[in-house]
Amino acid sequence: MSKLFMFEKPQGMRDTLPELYELKRRIRDTFAKEIAQWGFERVETPSVEFYETVGAASAILDQQLFKLLDHKGNTLVLRPDMTAPIARIAASTLKDADRPLRLTYDAPVFRAQQAEGGRPAEFEQIGVELIGDGSSGADAEVISLMMSSLARAEISSYQVAIGNVGFVNALLKEILGNDHRSQEFRRYLYEKNYVGFRKAVDALPLSSIDKNRLNKLLRLKGDRSVIDEARKLVESQEVQEALDQLEMVMSILADYESDEHVLIDLNLVMHMSYYTGTVFEAYSEGLGYPLGGGGRYDKLLEAFNHDEPATGFGLRLDRLAEAAGRKKQRVMKDSCIIFSQDRRKEAMQAAKKLRETGRSVVMQEIAGIKNVDSYSSQFNDVQYFVGSNGNGGSANE
Amino acid sequence: MSKLFMFEKPQGMRDTLPELYELKRRIRDTFAKEIAQWGFERVETPSVEFYETVGAASAILDQQLFKLLDHKGNTLVLRPDMTAPIARIAASTLKDADRPLRLTYDAPVFRAQQAEGGRPAEFEQIGVELIGDGSSGADAEVISLMMSSLARAEISSYQVAIGNVGFVNALLKEILGNDHRSQEFRRYLYEKNYVGFRKAVDALPLSSIDKNRLNKLLRLKGDRSVIDEARKLVESQEVQEALDQLEMVMSILADYESDEHVLIDLNLVMHMSYYTGTVFEAYSEGLGYPLGGGGRYDKLLEAFNHDEPATGFGLRLDRLAEAAGRKKQRVMKDSCIIFSQDRRKEAMQAAKKLRETGRSVVMQEIAGIKNVDSYSSQFNDVQYFVGSNGNGGSANE
Repeated sequence: MSKLFMFEKPQGMRDTLPELYELKRRIRDTFAKEIAQWGFERVETPSVEFYETVGAASAILDQQLFKLLDHKGNTLVLRPDMTAPIARIAASTLKDADRPLRLTYDAPVFRAQQAEGGRPAEFEQIGVELIGDGSSGADAEVISLMMSSLARAEISSYQVAIGNVGFVNALLKEILGNDHRSQEFRRYLYEKNYVGFRKAVDALPLSSIDKNRLNKLLRLKGDRSVIDEARKLVESQEVQEALDQLEMVMSILADYESDEHVLIDLNLVMHMSYYTGTVFEAYSEGLGYPLGGGGRYDKLLEAFNHDEPATGFGLRLDRLAEAAGRKKQRVMKDSCIIFSQDRRKEAMQAAKKLRETGRSVVMQEIAGIKNVDSYSSQFNDVQYFVGSNGNGGSANE
Repeated sequence: MSKLFMFEKPQGMRDTLPELYELKRRIRDTFAKEIAQWGFERVETPSVEFYETVGAASAILDQQLFKLLDHKGNTLVLRPDMTAPIARIAASTLKDADRPLRLTYDAPVFRAQQAEGGRPAEFEQIGVELIGDGSSGADAEVISLMMSSLARAEISSYQVAIGNVGFVNALLKEILGNDHRSQEFRRYLYEKNYVGFRKAVDALPLSSIDKNRLNKLLRLKGDRSVIDEARKLVESQEVQEALDQLEMVMSILADYESDEHVLIDLNLVMHMSYYTGTVFEAYSEGLGYPLGGGGRYDKLLEAFNHDEPATGFGLRLDRLAEAAGRKKQRVMKDSCIIFSQDRRKEAMQAAKKLRETGRSVVMQEIAGIKNVDSYSSQFNDVQYFVGSNGNGGSANE
């Protein structure tokens, strides 16, 4: 094989070694347990889907899709998210299952990276989808479940920003009139490019009152008083309804006693274009990017010929692990039994006994070790069954 | 989106719904626990690798590889197995870690399917690799760990066939002389096409003694007496060494008390072309294909510029689930609390209490349910907190 590539991985692709795996496993298991206790059921979907269905529905930029061809010439994609595949299942195999459906997943998703820069091209996403319930109670349930899982996984000082894209869309439409312009401003909000937003507002042929209203949008962040501020900004029925939803979500979260880590952010605009109402994003202090987020997507199921409301969240396991595992420490392996050939059977019996108590035991023939000092120093506890004279020493560090 | 594709998945791609997921989860957890207790450490590798490295080293037929291009025009593949990626890690990131290395994985692998026929194009493989130990003790350890995991996972009446490709290769080479002819006979053995094998033997320009020796190979299956039969067939040093290895593996398995489910099969030839010595395959009664297998691959690490011996096994989770879950049964969900809006808080408190006892509880607002009889019949236990008069009934089935 070519020297050039021998140890290389494609751009953005990573290995997970045992230490990081352990940290990820603990977080993964904590989330899985909490999510199961809230009655969400696990599904798995293929890594590869048709471009025409899941690829199109997922609303990830085309250049971020990994594409391949099958032997019939159909274009396939590595799934860029899990929401669209689960929508496919909900609209087909589980079409006749009782509603609301509560589903959960934990799976890698794929985003091609064009440039070096440390962004992963494959990362694991943990999430839930609550399908067939259009109430704000459903939004509050998934937000509360997300927060409860974050707390159990000991993610340090997390915070959740909650907004409503229905509000943003209606406000922009009322003031800007056309969709094309709204799209430009939505992009500034998504990129959190507030300087660009203000400059673009200045350049608009609008009254100073309307420019003011647009700029005020940027300040709609904080506690529940923000909702009253927002109500004054636009009076349309659409906007008032969006704010009623937000109020309802906040009041249910207070009932769940989950409002402590919550911030209202009415200029929150999410990456995925399919969100329709409540949206939210989770952060951990000191991490430069969100852990994940979610929201209501009442139009996505239509793409699968099955019109029903849905809401959910998705978090990135790599970022959760980063938030949970700031301080890395050398983890010692549990125990090892080192034996010589003639004493293998004795060693086996000792290993079996230890494993029965739940311990992890490496059994290693001494002939297979080059440097016994270095090898044995990896373990908390080493027992020796070597040579025929004596009873076999034990060295506990 | 096009009607044609709306609910379709690419050929060989499957969804896993909650019931099957539960079965798979139980098997997966059982294996993970047992393997960890034997001191093997978990790694994860990317789904996508370079064709030039892992694609080439994996020895899967080219037409079975899912190929794609990155933005620089390099050919990538969806990993067709986990042994080659782990060899890459062992030869690079873990190059300086103490030997022997004990690594384990549980991950999907990919094989493109050209024709309809129910073969999955993506399936989960659970396995271990023991790297840097060339002894038959290492082979016996991974076989014994595999059997111990199968027993714990309650896989019904499994059996393990053990052979040695070193023996087959040396025998074929001694009688047939050239590699090209040996390859033809290895293929018959791999396909278990014994009729084809015998026909091809008949057609050879060989003495009847040699034809007899070739045909006798097909009968080298059974208990340990087979080894003595085999010793009479060829006297070369190479063959005798291969049989010594087999004898050693069998005697260690007897020490592990794991030889009960073992059968010697000296015409066992494995799919992957990289095996060099001990090989084995696991079966479950009534399943028409092996659960998986493994063996020694002492030359693979050389492809990564790092010459060291290695052995391991890999089993297919889909087939394990099939073997474990012959009789499907409808699984009832645990419990549900159905509430009306005004009593949400009461309902939350009841749910919290139940979850603290380890129960799984769905909380569902009654307004979100279309048919309460059908919805509630999914659960073993349903509590109602609805309406303002009364204390909230409880219906336990």
